[in-house]
Amino acid sequence: MSAPFADRLHGAVEATGTPIVVGLDPHLTLLPEEYAVARDGGAPRAERAAAMESFLLEVVDLCAGAVPAVKPQAAFFEVLGADGVAAFERVVAAAKAAGLIVIGDVKRGDIGSTAAAYAEACLSGAERGHMCDAATVNPYLGSDSITPFIDACRAADAGIYVLVRTSNPGGADLQALELADGGHVAEHIARAVAGWGADLVGESGWSSVGAVVGATHPAELGALRELMPRTPLLLPGYGAQGGTAAGLAAAFTDGPHGALVNSSRGILFAHAKGPSGGHWKDASARAVTAMREDLAPLFRS
Amino acid sequence: MSAPFADRLHGAVEATGTPIVVGLDPHLTLLPEEYAVARDGGAPRAERAAAMESFLLEVVDLCAGAVPAVKPQAAFFEVLGADGVAAFERVVAAAKAAGLIVIGDVKRGDIGSTAAAYAEACLSGAERGHMCDAATVNPYLGSDSITPFIDACRAADAGIYVLVRTSNPGGADLQALELADGGHVAEHIARAVAGWGADLVGESGWSSVGAVVGATHPAELGALRELMPRTPLLLPGYGAQGGTAAGLAAAFTDGPHGALVNSSRGILFAHAKGPSGGHWKDASARAVTAMREDLAPLFRS
Repeated sequence: MSAPFADRLHGAVEATGTPIVVGLDPHLTLLPEEYAVARDGGAPRAERAAAMESFLLEVVDLCAGAVPAVKPQAAFFEVLGADGVAAFERVVAAAKAAGLIVIGDVKRGDIGSTAAAYAEACLSGAERGHMCDAATVNPYLGSDSITPFIDACRAADAGIYVLVRTSNPGGADLQALELADGGHVAEHIARAVAGWGADLVGESGWSSVGAVVGATHPAELGALRELMPRTPLLLPGYGAQGGTAAGLAAAFTDGPHGALVNSSRGILFAHAKGPSGGHWKDASARAVTAMREDLAPLFRS
Repeated sequence: MSAPFADRLHGAVEATGTPIVVGLDPHLTLLPEEYAVARDGGAPRAERAAAMESFLLEVVDLCAGAVPAVKPQAAFFEVLGADGVAAFERVVAAAKAAGLIVIGDVKRGDIGSTAAAYAEACLSGAERGHMCDAATVNPYLGSDSITPFIDACRAADAGIYVLVRTSNPGGADLQALELADGGHVAEHIARAVAGWGADLVGESGWSSVGAVVGATHPAELGALRELMPRTPLLLPGYGAQGGTAAGLAAAFTDGPHGALVNSSRGILFAHAKGPSGGHWKDASARAVTAMREDLAPLFRS
């Protein structure tokens, strides 16, 4: 790879004119009819994984050129064990070959030498073809659990997105706790994220150390952005989880850069919600266009 | 499976008379000479994974009957991608077939439907052969990220170990933060763990919802045990990370039950530290015996 993650992402957003990241969350039970074998628990696992992979390769095909990035969610692949993981690798490789930025949504986090193994597995391994451009990581284990991922960012021009304030209701249980020194846990982590990323700011002005902040928390977004002014955000929870475009304004004070807005089910399974008839891929393509139009007012000057 | 995780674990500790869990952390660079192909980056990945698997099957063989449990660390398998994950599945299946309790050290954590997919991948999937008996999980995303794992515990007689206070120095960064309402983050999580596990206490008196507390924090162990009186603990950090048997007394107020003490490198790679000569497996077996003797005074009445 040829440039820091942050700068490559900046270029991809520039080229496509939108900050959409399509979440590749292949819930097996929701796949279109032509991939029905994937949801048949009685079918051989390898066949199920192959059907899931075929579906996702079609999704990658419709994303290429239309959006800057995709975000495969490891859990839905791991449900199919080693066969699912093999599919994950091939989907990542296909997305990269199609010019998409790939953010592996793996939410890994562990102590030093183990975190280094995860970083090698996701980001900096020698077999480059299926390495992700960036990965999501969990900060519960502290600085020395993040350092190996940052080392991988340097070594492989990769990026990370640290969980700061997640989109789910239960995210508040820990992340919204008030600290004795003032502020909340999420704000404390946000400050740490800004520090971890300070040395990894690229020519674009953005760091390769990003943060996950739920699109479901518009009231907190501004304060978190202030604590992380050079941190690219990853905003899940738009659409299905209730996040709206209007609520994301604080993330886009600087044009379409600075944040990616994720949609998973709203795009992958658009056919299940819209009027029946027509091919699923057309419904998904229309959902991408609708999302692009919905977000555009946020950063039209 | 026939009984709640907590009760099966209790029986396994009873049968072997020791609370040792052997961490299966196959650092490729540390494998004995006869598995050298595993560390050869130029060798085909499947061959490297096969060598790693052969090593671990020997380790499982020496653990069977000698200790109650093994804890494969997912990261070191994932370094070898889908081939490594296939090896993980076969090692888990072999360990279970040998009568060992298997704790998958995966440290997963994600929002609802994704957490459900991880729980299915690790604990409650239909292909039972390679499902783990328990898994480690990360609490950063809150209650609704833990619920799907608890559902899996019920459905599959499985267990979880929630990260509370990890063994690494950086663990303090978040876990030792003082809260405005008093106490630390780790104590807050400990209270939540006790609540999550209250309905899953088996006939042994222990819950199937456990907690990870580093053996490197003897001063905190007593207070955390008080907050989690029925919670089985998983204590990493003994040996290589500096934890001593004497520091673990507060975890064993009730005999050898109530906690598992993990050793990974100290057992797997004992040959690299001891006097040269002899087979690695003999060195590992001696390390298990030495650890058993080191821990015994803790719960000898």
